[in-house]
Amino acid sequence: MEELINVGEFLDAAAAKVDPAVWCYFEGGADDEVTLRENVSAFRRWQLRPRLLVDVGEISLGTTLLGTPVSMPLGIAPFALQRLLDPEAELATTRAAAAAGALATVPTLTSFRHAELEAAAGGPRWLQLYVQLDHARTLEHLAEAREAGYRAVVLTVDLPLIGRRERDLRHGFAIPTEMPLHYGNLLDVDPTLTWSDLEWIRAAGELPLVLKGISTAEDAALAVEHGVDAIWVSNHGGRQLDGVAASIDTLPEVVEAAGGACEVYVDGGVRRGTDIVKALALGARAAFVGRPIAAGLAIGGEAGALRVLELLRAELELALGLLGCTSPDQVTRAHVQRASA
Amino acid sequence: MEELINVGEFLDAAAAKVDPAVWCYFEGGADDEVTLRENVSAFRRWQLRPRLLVDVGEISLGTTLLGTPVSMPLGIAPFALQRLLDPEAELATTRAAAAAGALATVPTLTSFRHAELEAAAGGPRWLQLYVQLDHARTLEHLAEAREAGYRAVVLTVDLPLIGRRERDLRHGFAIPTEMPLHYGNLLDVDPTLTWSDLEWIRAAGELPLVLKGISTAEDAALAVEHGVDAIWVSNHGGRQLDGVAASIDTLPEVVEAAGGACEVYVDGGVRRGTDIVKALALGARAAFVGRPIAAGLAIGGEAGALRVLELLRAELELALGLLGCTSPDQVTRAHVQRASA
Amino acid sequence: MEELINVGEFLDAAAAKVDPAVWCYFEGGADDEVTLRENVSAFRRWQLRPRLLVDVGEISLGTTLLGTPVSMPLGIAPFALQRLLDPEAELATTRAAAAAGALATVPTLTSFRHAELEAAAGGPRWLQLYVQLDHARTLEHLAEAREAGYRAVVLTVDLPLIGRRERDLRHGFAIPTEMPLHYGNLLDVDPTLTWSDLEWIRAAGELPLVLKGISTAEDAALAVEHGVDAIWVSNHGGRQLDGVAASIDTLPEVVEAAGGACEVYVDGGVRRGTDIVKALALGARAAFVGRPIAAGLAIGGEAGALRVLELLRAELELALGLLGCTSPDQVTRAHVQRASA
Amino acid sequence: MEELINVGEFLDAAAAKVDPAVWCYFEGGADDEVTLRENVSAFRRWQLRPRLLVDVGEISLGTTLLGTPVSMPLGIAPFALQRLLDPEAELATTRAAAAAGALATVPTLTSFRHAELEAAAGGPRWLQLYVQLDHARTLEHLAEAREAGYRAVVLTVDLPLIGRRERDLRHGFAIPTEMPLHYGNLLDVDPTLTWSDLEWIRAAGELPLVLKGISTAEDAALAVEHGVDAIWVSNHGGRQLDGVAASIDTLPEVVEAAGGACEVYVDGGVRRGTDIVKALALGARAAFVGRPIAAGLAIGGEAGALRVLELLRAELELALGLLGCTSPDQVTRAHVQRASA
Repeated sequence: MEELINVGEFLDAAAAKVDPAVWCYFEGGADDEVTLRENVSAFRRWQLRPRLLVDVGEISLGTTLLGTPVSMPLGIAPFALQRLLDPEAELATTRAAAAAGALATVPTLTSFRHAELEAAAGGPRWLQLYVQLDHARTLEHLAEAREAGYRAVVLTVDLPLIGRRERDLRHGFAIPTEMPLHYGNLLDVDPTLTWSDLEWIRAAGELPLVLKGISTAEDAALAVEHGVDAIWVSNHGGRQLDGVAASIDTLPEVVEAAGGACEVYVDGGVRRGTDIVKALALGARAAFVGRPIAAGLAIGGEAGALRVLELLRAELELALGLLGCTSPDQVTRAHVQRASA
Repeated sequence: MEELINVGEFLDAAAAKVDPAVWCYFEGGADDEVTLRENVSAFRRWQLRPRLLVDVGEISLGTTLLGTPVSMPLGIAPFALQRLLDPEAELATTRAAAAAGALATVPTLTSFRHAELEAAAGGPRWLQLYVQLDHARTLEHLAEAREAGYRAVVLTVDLPLIGRRERDLRHGFAIPTEMPLHYGNLLDVDPTLTWSDLEWIRAAGELPLVLKGISTAEDAALAVEHGVDAIWVSNHGGRQLDGVAASIDTLPEVVEAAGGACEVYVDGGVRRGTDIVKALALGARAAFVGRPIAAGLAIGGEAGALRVLELLRAELELALGLLGCTSPDQVTRAHVQRASA
Repeated sequence: MEELINVGEFLDAAAAKVDPAVWCYFEGGADDEVTLRENVSAFRRWQLRPRLLVDVGEISLGTTLLGTPVSMPLGIAPFALQRLLDPEAELATTRAAAAAGALATVPTLTSFRHAELEAAAGGPRWLQLYVQLDHARTLEHLAEAREAGYRAVVLTVDLPLIGRRERDLRHGFAIPTEMPLHYGNLLDVDPTLTWSDLEWIRAAGELPLVLKGISTAEDAALAVEHGVDAIWVSNHGGRQLDGVAASIDTLPEVVEAAGGACEVYVDGGVRRGTDIVKALALGARAAFVGRPIAAGLAIGGEAGALRVLELLRAELELALGLLGCTSPDQVTRAHVQRASA
Repeated sequence: MEELINVGEFLDAAAAKVDPAVWCYFEGGADDEVTLRENVSAFRRWQLRPRLLVDVGEISLGTTLLGTPVSMPLGIAPFALQRLLDPEAELATTRAAAAAGALATVPTLTSFRHAELEAAAGGPRWLQLYVQLDHARTLEHLAEAREAGYRAVVLTVDLPLIGRRERDLRHGFAIPTEMPLHYGNLLDVDPTLTWSDLEWIRAAGELPLVLKGISTAEDAALAVEHGVDAIWVSNHGGRQLDGVAASIDTLPEVVEAAGGACEVYVDGGVRRGTDIVKALALGARAAFVGRPIAAGLAIGGEAGALRVLELLRAELELALGLLGCTSPDQVTRAHVQRASA
């Protein structure tokens, strides 16, 4: 693992190591995977504008997310079925996050109970929520998370139906029946959820509410109108509706529509510290990574996930310094520009 | 056939199965095939804008085309010489369309008589018309179609001369002399047809008139002026004038010029349910597919053609739901955007 | 030769047949050959807009160039050292042009005397002129051409110095010393020529004057001011200054600057009938081809050059018809559009 | 070496000759090397607009840089550790520059003392300066350079921290401990330098001050405000912050912000004489090359470096002439245009 020097190499190593019939689930996207590829390549169309002769002798990456202090503006995005990659699964990734002082988002499809994660990992955690057809089950889920010290509920809103991931179809991928999934599954996600449901979810969670999966200014405006605490720009890693714009390209319209009324995050395609800096420059308060953590988990378990976080942290610190900034909040819209065609 | 999970795989399988000296006719385009490739790739430059937290528990794909109810906004485009791919030819494709509740457009170069198709397949059919040098023959053709219950006449207007398809030249492709073609052929298409001819065609057909092959706002405006019932945006699958824009890129100017005065359809490059949704968003009432059906026919006869229709239907339903729509008419211009360069 | 069905195949066949140490001279461009490739690929960024339901039963390609009737708006561009490809050299190409009713431009670096070409080929010819350091030699050249019935002088203005063609350097290409070149050579081209020299050239030639090699609106305006009879937009086939725009992309600014005060032609990258149509739509009165004729000459001598002209004529006629035009002068700016990015 | 006919071939030859564990240091860039590649490819998106019928019988390349006469508007950019490529190192490159009448910028990480270079090479030299944590050492450095007849101080401002160059990491590249580096190293560069430090550097140097590494209009304006003598647009050859725009694309905004108040130079991606001409057209007074000189040095020592300079000089002279200019100052913004997409 020591020889892997960047996230790309972790992803390549994971693709080489993990059974393709399993890794397909983590790496694949919907249909032709246009959005999957766009998420990564779109970052290249944003260019950095470094400011020089700034004292960058001391750089601090710390920030807060919905009031929770974290060591950097980078967190772990939720991704399901982590046990397929490592027996310690969510235990490993939440421990890695805690060790890094980073925020972890725990998926609904976890193989560990929230109390176990709280006991074993500690650290700031958010709950990723799929509302199940049986709302009672979701209410129990929310209660359990709240008791386990979760700081926010991240409601995924871009999976009313399950995207068609052809890599999975080709490999005959199926969730192993013996895998414990305590809080729900994708097949029972409620496709009838609307804005009015936010009320009971919020009431039940008694926690700040983040909407994950927003891709338009219109929905961002509605989110603000409905008083959400944060908007998480995402296209589900290119796994839902293929043909949606890269999330980094969608970020500006969402930030503008949010108008500062709530925090905005982004995931999708982040592979470098400079990607995180671009997200900050375009108005995100933090970026999240999923596949890079999956790769770290597959390669080295908890240590692998931690290594990925630390690689990105080092890159981010360097990028900030070379940009002439000493903290995330110094990064402004003027630090980034659209590449000319 | 069961292992083929999308239209692209059907096309690859057909290219591998069918004699290249035959398949060249179906897959090829004019000259350098720039427009042929553009038709497909242009869809990627349109991006979807999904709206979330919409109840998509029930999705209905049904619509009407010139008043005829169909099960989805996707029909079969006319393509000639189907017997080269399957002995049941147009019988197979019209049966598949009927089974799917979809509209079939029957080509002038069919090997079955319209009465046979009516008897064996039923289902909503439109007549694709090449006006022959001998107008009398065309009048008979129209009469026979009308008696066989056809619902509209689709006059192809972009073939006053036959495009130069070099794949055919290289393979020495020629229409087998023994193939029955009851209603006309390409060599005898009338190149002198003008807008004033629409009058007698319409009078003879006593059916709604669709103009297929329109590529400009100017001609769309003329079509409306001449009272056509629908405009079908098409570049003949890239088989006529190479260098014309992709049909999906031409659609917006035609829709704008039509101004709601008639229905607008589009064909060319549709390979995915998301492509159909993009066509709807840009103002088409329906999309049509030709090569995908040819591939289905080549691979599995009637069952193959039906399978292609059902694959696209499933993709379309999923795409609609993920877009936050529960019926075709909910798709608006705001659901799509031009990809930024 | 019969199996070659388009210009691209002629070029490929010539590259395969001719000694690379010779063909390098004909196919190569300057430096990195960026402009060489751009000349061809730029045509793809212009798209055709076909108008339909136009009577195209009769199509005529005839036009006039500086008053000389020609059978089509396509002529042979001047290119040097034709004897390297065929012993009949300029005799073959001018005969081919005459047979096709097309205009031929005879290079200064010809191996035949103008009187020989007049006697053996007839047909409309223009003289391509490099002014030599020894102006007396140029005056003789002009006199000889005038007596041989040439209809215009095409002064090449983009070769004050010789472009650096690295293919030639790598192959050690040099003009064979035994090759007869009666009227001058590249090494003795006069680099001090300015606009004021046009006067004596014109006076000596007593023929209409065409400036070949114009690439900017500024020079087009100066050309008009100096009363030239035609402007020939060209970047010398990408053989002079690498990094210049494709000639088809330069054409519009030149046409606009010329403002109808003189005829405008274009060469560079024409490979298809649709390319010629695009040139017409952008304001050229005719297009010229060099390398395609060189390839025809290399493959089949006079018959090969003629075959290339006839292939392009057939493609042009078809393109016109499919565009809804029955003569070159019906092609307008509205028949072409810039491809959207 | 004689068979190498352009800079690209020198670079290829050097990559083939030099130990990869050494050449990695010279050829590599930061992270994904996006900016490294962009520097080169961006020149292709600027097109030349040649003016014709200009007397180019006599072309002169001479100019002045901060008042120092040089034979051409092309100099040697500073690059460290030249001894890894040739034992004569900076002695060889400064001699080559002197022989060519070109300006050489001597790096802080040189293996020769400035007095040695002055004695052995002569010729116009500028000092590239990294300010060390121990400012006393930098003061000595400046004094030594001034005494050795250096004409200006080029303060590198884009390396407050060292960029992450993964090729070096993969090859385990490290500066050999036995290499003499008299004036400082990268690890001890002072990251706290700000605009106010320019005052003491200038006072100590008693030489004109050039800021190298500026990438924004904002910093260019600050530079002018602080009275610098020249701005050197550079992204450190793509070795510092990956994702910054190509330097040739950044040049226009810097030139505009400088507003003629100081000279502006550019380095990064220059491989051709036409690249230099584009830089001049966009407002640079001179361009600088680093890797091409490194390649020349690796291939042929002093003679190799000189050969690279002379190749570029010949290309530049030809490019000027074909552009219709007879001296660098005749090149204007109108000689270049952005390529259309």
